[in-house]
Amino acid sequence: MKNLLIFGVGLIGGSIALKVKKDAIFDRVIGVSRHNGRSLDDFVKKGMLDEIAVNVEEAISTANFIIIATPVAQTKNILKKIYPYLNADCLVTDVGSTKSEVMLDAAESLGDKFDQFIGSHPIAGSEKHGPDAADEKLFEGKNIIITPHSQANKVQLDCLWGFWECMGGIVSSMTPSQHDEIFSTVSHLPHLLAFALVNLINKKNSKDQLLEFAASGFRDFSRIAASSPEVWRDISLANKKAIISDLTLYKKEIDVLVEFIDNSQEGNLNDYLSKASSTRSEWAEDKK
Amino acid sequence: MKNLLIFGVGLIGGSIALKVKKDAIFDRVIGVSRHNGRSLDDFVKKGMLDEIAVNVEEAISTANFIIIATPVAQTKNILKKIYPYLNADCLVTDVGSTKSEVMLDAAESLGDKFDQFIGSHPIAGSEKHGPDAADEKLFEGKNIIITPHSQANKVQLDCLWGFWECMGGIVSSMTPSQHDEIFSTVSHLPHLLAFALVNLINKKNSKDQLLEFAASGFRDFSRIAASSPEVWRDISLANKKAIISDLTLYKKEIDVLVEFIDNSQEGNLNDYLSKASSTRSEWAEDKK
Repeated sequence: MKNLLIFGVGLIGGSIALKVKKDAIFDRVIGVSRHNGRSLDDFVKKGMLDEIAVNVEEAISTANFIIIATPVAQTKNILKKIYPYLNADCLVTDVGSTKSEVMLDAAESLGDKFDQFIGSHPIAGSEKHGPDAADEKLFEGKNIIITPHSQANKVQLDCLWGFWECMGGIVSSMTPSQHDEIFSTVSHLPHLLAFALVNLINKKNSKDQLLEFAASGFRDFSRIAASSPEVWRDISLANKKAIISDLTLYKKEIDVLVEFIDNSQEGNLNDYLSKASSTRSEWAEDKK
Repeated sequence: MKNLLIFGVGLIGGSIALKVKKDAIFDRVIGVSRHNGRSLDDFVKKGMLDEIAVNVEEAISTANFIIIATPVAQTKNILKKIYPYLNADCLVTDVGSTKSEVMLDAAESLGDKFDQFIGSHPIAGSEKHGPDAADEKLFEGKNIIITPHSQANKVQLDCLWGFWECMGGIVSSMTPSQHDEIFSTVSHLPHLLAFALVNLINKKNSKDQLLEFAASGFRDFSRIAASSPEVWRDISLANKKAIISDLTLYKKEIDVLVEFIDNSQEGNLNDYLSKASSTRSEWAEDKK
């Protein structure tokens, strides 16, 4: 009897549950309800989950695979809760957007059982939230990063890799710090820059008029500024070092632009914009 | 006999031609071919234009309304070319994205006929270019800004206002500098910031890996970085003052973020991100 235990049945946890149930990858899929969160009973009725863990300790001790898909700030407490009941064959992973901090948390919380934890980050999401938005195809063709530590068990590593492939993902392995540097630049930085543009507008006296005339360029650029403040606060603090380094580099890019524009350096400005335009156009072609 | 003369039959000029022809707003729609550009013969055959101006001087002297829809850098030369042949009843407008510079160019080039020029900026566009992408509905429900100067003829002002309403637009009038400040913030700034993010990535050794893992957040944020370098070079230089002021303000927003993140000011960071998230979410609701 193979049991999958999911902490946090939201968009990601719910999408995993749907796919696992559809392809019968585990015998039983068990969800852990949040204390103050929405009841998961409906999702048992709909067949997304086999049951809700009534006795969480027992559910942990009989689990073969545990996925922590709660907001990132809860991960450390859940790892501490898991530790005493975790059986030796059980693999534990998470789905958080930063990886260095969670690996440190796991080392601290799981102690001698740390080698049973391998971090995951599925690069899949949606502006929608919660289990109602869950989609069994959410991970199809999406990149999934796993961040094993040096003591990771080879069998469990293969198992995790295979699991994400079963979800439809394209799996890559890297160190937690490599992961955090990459996602600082391609995800965390653009999110923070979008929040910053909206707040620049918020602070202007002409705010209402500005928003009235904002059109499609603003719309796409700032879409991610509508993201959850709590999620992005936690990510920013969890990946502080890489993010501050990127924000500092970004200010230098602005300085370059200001210099070219202020001094009417037409040729340099054209080259600068052309390089970005080519890279972005080629990227879009490659991703087709 | 009422003639409309269009310099630059691209996306904007072509879309105007289509709508004017469909609703028979003018008796004749005449296009001016670029010297080294694509021949417009096909568009006469398809009925988008009634004719190509063979003798441009004559076409100018018999025009009742002239629209300059070429790349902005050509506007001044076209105004100079128009001047000697412009008849006293003819209204001239443009469709450029910045307005202060074009008003100065018009004052200089048209001299005593300057009151026949009123600037326009239809806030409508597409990533597609050229007359093949033209769409008679391009202006439907879109904001159109007109920037009359103090000497503008009231009859001609009403005429221009009515013309853009016939195109389906929602017309507003403001001063050239108001226009340029607004569009610096809601359009020019996000474009330059998107170009800057792509160039930050271009300069990193890990560029290829970064682009490999860039996903939907990056995609939307940076879509406008694929825009034409020439167009954005010209806009940046034409609206230098407002853009540099906004880039400087934007660097201050980054400093605020760096401070909150570096000092782990969780509450301040949360407030900052929440304000932006609310504004962006409400904006999206309003624009529905």
